[in-house]
Amino acid sequence: MKINGIHYRSVWLADDRYTVEIFDQTKLPFEIQTIQLRTMQDAATAIKDMWVRGAPLIGAVAAYGMALAMHQESSDENLQQAYNVLVKTRPTAINLKWALNRTYRALENLEQAHREAAAYRIANEIADEDVELCRKIGEYGLKIIQNIAETKPTGETVNILTHCNAGWLATVDWGTALAPIYMAHDAGIKVHVWVDETRPRNQGGLTAFELGSHGVPHTLVADNAGGHLMQHGKVDLCIVGTDRTTARGDVCNKIGTYLKALAAKANQVPFYVALPSPTLDFTVWDGVKEIPIEQRSGEEQSHVYGITPEGVRSWVNTAPHGTSCENYAFDVTPAELITGLITERGICDASAEGLRALFPDLCG
Amino acid sequence: MKINGIHYRSVWLADDRYTVEIFDQTKLPFEIQTIQLRTMQDAATAIKDMWVRGAPLIGAVAAYGMALAMHQESSDENLQQAYNVLVKTRPTAINLKWALNRTYRALENLEQAHREAAAYRIANEIADEDVELCRKIGEYGLKIIQNIAETKPTGETVNILTHCNAGWLATVDWGTALAPIYMAHDAGIKVHVWVDETRPRNQGGLTAFELGSHGVPHTLVADNAGGHLMQHGKVDLCIVGTDRTTARGDVCNKIGTYLKALAAKANQVPFYVALPSPTLDFTVWDGVKEIPIEQRSGEEQSHVYGITPEGVRSWVNTAPHGTSCENYAFDVTPAELITGLITERGICDASAEGLRALFPDLCG
Repeated sequence: MKINGIHYRSVWLADDRYTVEIFDQTKLPFEIQTIQLRTMQDAATAIKDMWVRGAPLIGAVAAYGMALAMHQESSDENLQQAYNVLVKTRPTAINLKWALNRTYRALENLEQAHREAAAYRIANEIADEDVELCRKIGEYGLKIIQNIAETKPTGETVNILTHCNAGWLATVDWGTALAPIYMAHDAGIKVHVWVDETRPRNQGGLTAFELGSHGVPHTLVADNAGGHLMQHGKVDLCIVGTDRTTARGDVCNKIGTYLKALAAKANQVPFYVALPSPTLDFTVWDGVKEIPIEQRSGEEQSHVYGITPEGVRSWVNTAPHGTSCENYAFDVTPAELITGLITERGICDASAEGLRALFPDLCG
Repeated sequence: MKINGIHYRSVWLADDRYTVEIFDQTKLPFEIQTIQLRTMQDAATAIKDMWVRGAPLIGAVAAYGMALAMHQESSDENLQQAYNVLVKTRPTAINLKWALNRTYRALENLEQAHREAAAYRIANEIADEDVELCRKIGEYGLKIIQNIAETKPTGETVNILTHCNAGWLATVDWGTALAPIYMAHDAGIKVHVWVDETRPRNQGGLTAFELGSHGVPHTLVADNAGGHLMQHGKVDLCIVGTDRTTARGDVCNKIGTYLKALAAKANQVPFYVALPSPTLDFTVWDGVKEIPIEQRSGEEQSHVYGITPEGVRSWVNTAPHGTSCENYAFDVTPAELITGLITERGICDASAEGLRALFPDLCG
């Protein structure tokens, strides 16, 4: 999507066609800084130190990491070594292993002289495929927004609430939950986005940055505000992303998603979840009972990052001395609270039947 | 309640029996600093600059402000002047005007020589009455906690979730929502409190400070976490305060309360609201439709206060440059989500019938 009118992806090749460029997302939303990755090790650091984040983007950068390794030295030994280093950069990202396996298998039986070109081709394919997934999610989701816009008096704004960041910075372009919003905005529909702050890691700041950079009207609010907004008719639609979707349509997404889904149900606000099929996990049925929820450091709760009045970026500890904090990273929204799932193959009910109908090849 | 084993109220007289002492609550929860108020103007500044907060405490400090004025000069003119200055310190606090009217009416027909003693007596009465209200709320609420403790295997902890700060720092002692918790802890019941951070003003820090100082086990969590905690049986009971309670039992409390009430209902967790009768407003029926919700500065959302790694207290701006924020201070929880109202006269249903039965003299 756009920053100051110029189109970007979250990962791309430099003019030399081998250097990989990314944004240092650890500096966002306060500073836009491009980083050049010239070696496999650079790519590994970028993933490990979270210069890039979001499963789809991590997958693409890992594939480019394999390509950088082949640019450096295309031996069997280096191929294996690159795989071993890159696969250990993040513990749980599904796309990481998937992208590495795909690249490794394609390269292992190739002559060394052809490996570099093949590796770049595969990495480009992985990136392009992700863009295409998100674009399709955007097109299907756009129809939902169009339908709502048509029920309103001409020119009245469609208000959409989102939680966390499921935007283009977490994918290669478009994003998942935000793709329909970008498409609606680009199609001339008046949209306004309520952006949940998303404590404790404040990913709402990334969403506000994305939307602001592309020119989409939006307002940042406390996670506490959504219920009030929905009670008062200020939200026409919720769209969120998901990290994992179960066989019956339960959705595991950023902590706090469940509370918004409850408020949406209570106030008859449609609540949609946007997901590329790789987040589907048909081995899990009951998300609340079966999905273990990651607990992260309490310091992510007590310590907040921002800019001091002197313009210095700093952490501040907001909790009283000695306070213990717990930090649950995700929660599960049961399928019955979800109006529909927006996938690259269309929109379906959040139910086993709905998912089976769209993904007969995946549900086994 | 206690700080380091010593009992405090939130306002008290110094040994000279005329100087009024308070904590500078703008420094809490990071620093405990006592301030001496020696003039009516000091008391006015304390209220205006939010060294004290919470409607009951503001009322008591205003009454002490009148007493300080009479200590300075007990003329009719100064009595009127003190009233005029103090009544303007905060725009909407009901207790402020009520305490000032009560004091003014008692003093206006007294001889000047008796006004100072009478003013201190009334201020002490107002403070003592508030402590008594909260103590009774605590005793009634204690029974709820005792009942839950009795259903659990011996020695198992009762987990209570609270939102915002309805503790002794907002009243004169005990607090409202926290009074039952202090009583349960003091009675030897094992309690643990989930303290909502309460964005955007982070009053959860005050609650964590209060509970920690008194020795009550507690954990600070993001406002987003409560739904997950209730889904997983980690909350036995919610208790919150209220700023305004309608004739049918709707409750207007800190933004985000409504989301927790929805989660409590969905997960069969009892959800109680603690309230002293002065928060009852029998002129309002439908809280969602009739109560205007205060919108405060967006800077309270974007800017967070804490301590830098260098030990300096500082604000940090957490929002991307140019982001617009909206800041709704309260929301309304409809009566049907509330298990019961804990008042100084007992516990009743959150309903017109429930309130009428307990407060026939107030409902008109």
